[in-house]
Amino acid sequence: MYTVLAGGGGAARFLRGLTRLVPPSEVLAVVNVGDDLTHLGLRVCPDLDSITYWLAGVVHPEQQWGRAEETHVVASELERFGHEAWFTLGDRDLATHLHRTLRLSQGASLSEVTAEVTRAFGVDLRLLPATDDPVETRITTVDDRDLHFQEYWVRERGRPEVASVRLAGAEHAVPAPGVVEAIESAEVVLLAPSNPVVSIGMILAVPGIRAALERTAAPVVGVSPIIGGEVVRGMAHRLLPAVGAEVSAVGVARHYRQLLDGWVIDHADAALADEVRDLRIACAVTDTMMDDVEVAAALAGTCLDLAASARTQAGR
Amino acid sequence: MYTVLAGGGGAARFLRGLTRLVPPSEVLAVVNVGDDLTHLGLRVCPDLDSITYWLAGVVHPEQQWGRAEETHVVASELERFGHEAWFTLGDRDLATHLHRTLRLSQGASLSEVTAEVTRAFGVDLRLLPATDDPVETRITTVDDRDLHFQEYWVRERGRPEVASVRLAGAEHAVPAPGVVEAIESAEVVLLAPSNPVVSIGMILAVPGIRAALERTAAPVVGVSPIIGGEVVRGMAHRLLPAVGAEVSAVGVARHYRQLLDGWVIDHADAALADEVRDLRIACAVTDTMMDDVEVAAALAGTCLDLAASARTQAGR
Repeated sequence: MYTVLAGGGGAARFLRGLTRLVPPSEVLAVVNVGDDLTHLGLRVCPDLDSITYWLAGVVHPEQQWGRAEETHVVASELERFGHEAWFTLGDRDLATHLHRTLRLSQGASLSEVTAEVTRAFGVDLRLLPATDDPVETRITTVDDRDLHFQEYWVRERGRPEVASVRLAGAEHAVPAPGVVEAIESAEVVLLAPSNPVVSIGMILAVPGIRAALERTAAPVVGVSPIIGGEVVRGMAHRLLPAVGAEVSAVGVARHYRQLLDGWVIDHADAALADEVRDLRIACAVTDTMMDDVEVAAALAGTCLDLAASARTQAGR
Repeated sequence: MYTVLAGGGGAARFLRGLTRLVPPSEVLAVVNVGDDLTHLGLRVCPDLDSITYWLAGVVHPEQQWGRAEETHVVASELERFGHEAWFTLGDRDLATHLHRTLRLSQGASLSEVTAEVTRAFGVDLRLLPATDDPVETRITTVDDRDLHFQEYWVRERGRPEVASVRLAGAEHAVPAPGVVEAIESAEVVLLAPSNPVVSIGMILAVPGIRAALERTAAPVVGVSPIIGGEVVRGMAHRLLPAVGAEVSAVGVARHYRQLLDGWVIDHADAALADEVRDLRIACAVTDTMMDDVEVAAALAGTCLDLAASARTQAGR
């Protein structure tokens, strides 16, 4: 089994590439759920849905989240009721949330619902939420406000300066069924080029997951989400300082150093490869900007090669 | 206050006419909620919504329920999840149900939510659900199946033969706040030309409402939903026999006889006027087919005139 720790869009692109190389049935993604929120009574799971829509080929091509050919009839009708409008749900997307909310209310777990949703979209790799328990990523700003991640990122457009990030509810959360096993028994564990703080970081914040990664016999290989000192998308550059990490390909490797056997960085960061190796992490340099699926597949191939050589070196 | 007992479309037309004659702020409709259902986790109130959409001028012109210019993006997306498809919600309509479901989950009563919805649609007469408590109209068929009203009417298209009708949950239900007062203190109580069994009948099945009608000093005047022995719309002809009532303008008057001071019938049934009067119910004959709002206003005027003469005769 190829087990991938995954956030949203970047992870989705990476998974699309990986499944060009290995059968989707052998790929399992452990997905961040800290971004999840209940909006207008509907349970919304942005990372799970982004990955599902990407892999099903129905993601919105410009936004790169939400549905292609989306309409907003429900949202526009909801305006008359005066709800907060900063988080908008498209009509097609809403069907997913309605199904999820209904099934959760009937007692299904998020893992079970996620399996239903991926099946309904014909996605043949397995997605597991990091946990089935209620958790949420909370951002404390330097002016001491406590925000849900979506309030910080969508409502406030990621502008407030971040003092700290935590996964609220983590103390009562356990990994979803199959998550620890998928890490422990994996052939390879891959860290997708997702946000190290709010995507991968929040997966690792679920008690038991970090320990499983430290324990696994599988090589652990990650892809840098930082290219040439810049984030490709998103807000990692605003969040890494809050966890004491440098916004660079080597800074993220250092942040993950307890976990990594290998780290893949972009050509733009080739000069940093030796610094990564100084951390006793194998390093490969390739094209990590996944503008199309061929680049993503080649990147996944580089990760698997690095994992194979890490395994050989370790005598595993 | 003009208090109207109301079902769906027929009542909506009647209310539209009535509010041409009297200020909407003096009109209160007590609305059937037995047809309400929870579909895909959303609380749907067909009669409350039909009236609201009619009065707001946004009802679907052909269906005469649901929203005009409706789309069905969410419903079509939901198909992939394999839910029962016999009850379809349009996108615009869905916004109403989302708001209602959210507010009910937050602890608001159906009365409170109904006030929010009518306000959001600019409807200036007051709608009260017959009860805020959970009730549902159940149909027992002659082959002994027990169906929710919507299963009988929408899913089975009203085809099963009906043995009996009951308001499940009525034993624990009380009238919504203001309902009994609106009947007791009314200037006139009007029974809209709604289904006598599943619309008006289910309102009367809420303990306390029938007694308020029997007790009120206001004249009670109804409009026959049967014209020339036929129902204008709906399934009253299939249900009246189940309550031992004849499918005719006089049959319905007889069914309501304990309550009525006056009964308005169509020209097509003029020959039955004396039979109505033999029941000691004042009777007026007019055009009751409310094809446009002018006819509806004239019909409402006839009702108010009949109420005035009933009041005079009773020396009230």
